[in-house]
Amino acid sequence: MIAVQLDGGAVSVVRRPKPRRRPGEALIRLLCGGICNTDIELKRGYYGFSGTPGHEFVGEVVACDEPAWVGKRVTGGINVGCGACERCLRGLERHCATRTVLGIVQRPGAFSEYFTLPVRNLHEIPAGLATETAVFAEPVAAACEILEQVKIPRGTAVAVLGDGKLGLVVAQVLAARGACIDLYGRHEEKMALVAGPRIAARSSNQRGNSTYEYVVEATGSAGGLREAVAMTRPRGKVILKSTVHEAVTLDMAPVIVNEITLVGSRCGRMEEALRLLARGAVRVEPLISARYGLSEAVRAFARAEEKGVVKVLLEGA
Amino acid sequence: MIAVQLDGGAVSVVRRPKPRRRPGEALIRLLCGGICNTDIELKRGYYGFSGTPGHEFVGEVVACDEPAWVGKRVTGGINVGCGACERCLRGLERHCATRTVLGIVQRPGAFSEYFTLPVRNLHEIPAGLATETAVFAEPVAAACEILEQVKIPRGTAVAVLGDGKLGLVVAQVLAARGACIDLYGRHEEKMALVAGPRIAARSSNQRGNSTYEYVVEATGSAGGLREAVAMTRPRGKVILKSTVHEAVTLDMAPVIVNEITLVGSRCGRMEEALRLLARGAVRVEPLISARYGLSEAVRAFARAEEKGVVKVLLEGA
Repeated sequence: MIAVQLDGGAVSVVRRPKPRRRPGEALIRLLCGGICNTDIELKRGYYGFSGTPGHEFVGEVVACDEPAWVGKRVTGGINVGCGACERCLRGLERHCATRTVLGIVQRPGAFSEYFTLPVRNLHEIPAGLATETAVFAEPVAAACEILEQVKIPRGTAVAVLGDGKLGLVVAQVLAARGACIDLYGRHEEKMALVAGPRIAARSSNQRGNSTYEYVVEATGSAGGLREAVAMTRPRGKVILKSTVHEAVTLDMAPVIVNEITLVGSRCGRMEEALRLLARGAVRVEPLISARYGLSEAVRAFARAEEKGVVKVLLEGA
Repeated sequence: MIAVQLDGGAVSVVRRPKPRRRPGEALIRLLCGGICNTDIELKRGYYGFSGTPGHEFVGEVVACDEPAWVGKRVTGGINVGCGACERCLRGLERHCATRTVLGIVQRPGAFSEYFTLPVRNLHEIPAGLATETAVFAEPVAAACEILEQVKIPRGTAVAVLGDGKLGLVVAQVLAARGACIDLYGRHEEKMALVAGPRIAARSSNQRGNSTYEYVVEATGSAGGLREAVAMTRPRGKVILKSTVHEAVTLDMAPVIVNEITLVGSRCGRMEEALRLLARGAVRVEPLISARYGLSEAVRAFARAEEKGVVKVLLEGA
């Protein structure tokens, strides 16, 4: 089979044997994968990653201990916990200290003809939901995570900073759940993809001070985090949605004096994401900038790094 | 009358006329004041402060539009809001954008024979509560603020970092409300002042990683904040209780990956503080290192900056 391989900053497509599934795991054939900013960062050598990336996927189960799954279209939770520790038993597998993470930590990813995941991680794609739409389940789940951590009353004005892939998904998810979004970015053409009655595109230089009760930081930059703090009202909350890959130098005095809460936020649950996608509450098709076959992964990664590009998909063989 | 004056890093005691009270304000005679770390930082020139400090106090009302207050022993909320904005109307005067703050922002402080505060800020000291105990109401209220922002279930292990004045008060308040405190500091003799069945003194080098659901940062240092994050479990909370007067360089990746929440926390409500002090749930007398008369403020400030000293009180004339 073929698989994408990242090594020392370079992408290649390699041939290797099909993976063997372990007990409790399903063997999955890739139908469609999505390139995420994390994949680009892994390629650039953050975390010293070497291996096969890919954690946004839709695949078909081809082998499994439980025959009912075979032939099903699935996506899956990307964190594989030990299943036995206190965090796993509390339903927080995604925080298990010894977890593997599909395509990120100690587990080959989905940008491969075949890959494996435990059956307990799988989620069936509803019949009416297109594969290219369902492949957004992972980032939509990450956006849903915000609402699991923070209660945002309906009708509340929320600032979302960043008009990249994640910012555009976060804006839509929060709008679908009743918030009124001011989306701050530098790319009018990207923000236009999601603008609507509940999402207003704002220019980065329109930011005010102490304006919002809730600000979502999705720029991935240290500057974005500082601006998010400045835009937040006393007793308000900043949700840290994108990982900043540099040490951030932050003046904590306004955080303390204004009693601002900073909430780190990562992966979410797939169920709610698939529900939102199935009922059309989040429109992800306009975010697809390009499609490539798995064998064209080198070009696909190059395209994903170009300015103005949103989501690049990798289609299975 | 005499008053303490800070200017360009120097403390002096000056003579000046009694302040005139404005409508709605009470004229208060100082009975006892407490020197706080903020006062020391103001003296050192943070914020470019110049004027009379002092925000921990017990005084006697000597003049007031409402005769019932005259002769009463009082302490007071230190934030004076405009009373008309949305925040003031929601009961968040302490976040009013145009507030003055006693002895800190645009309002002469309590280290003065006489000073003024609006009557609505006053809290009567219960009859059985000693003046020297009640003078701790402000820092105890600041500790109570944590419990207004974060629900800590009874019996939960909480780490408090820092064995300064604030850390020792925070440890006691949280213990009084049912938490089991691990108090981390460098001064065994300070921690011994509050150690007991619910408060265990720990050495700074006993810190473990990802151990606590709740960590209170009360060291006032950038290093303390970094350590607090490292000690917090996934989905746990760090309460930022002391202001760090330098830009903090922080790796935000663990905050995001472990979905840690950082909660800025400042002043609290006096009512609960006075209740805790009145029922002896917080023992503050052992924290008193020295007492000086107001006219000896220069020596008092020097003493408050000495190693091993906890609380220094200034007694009214």
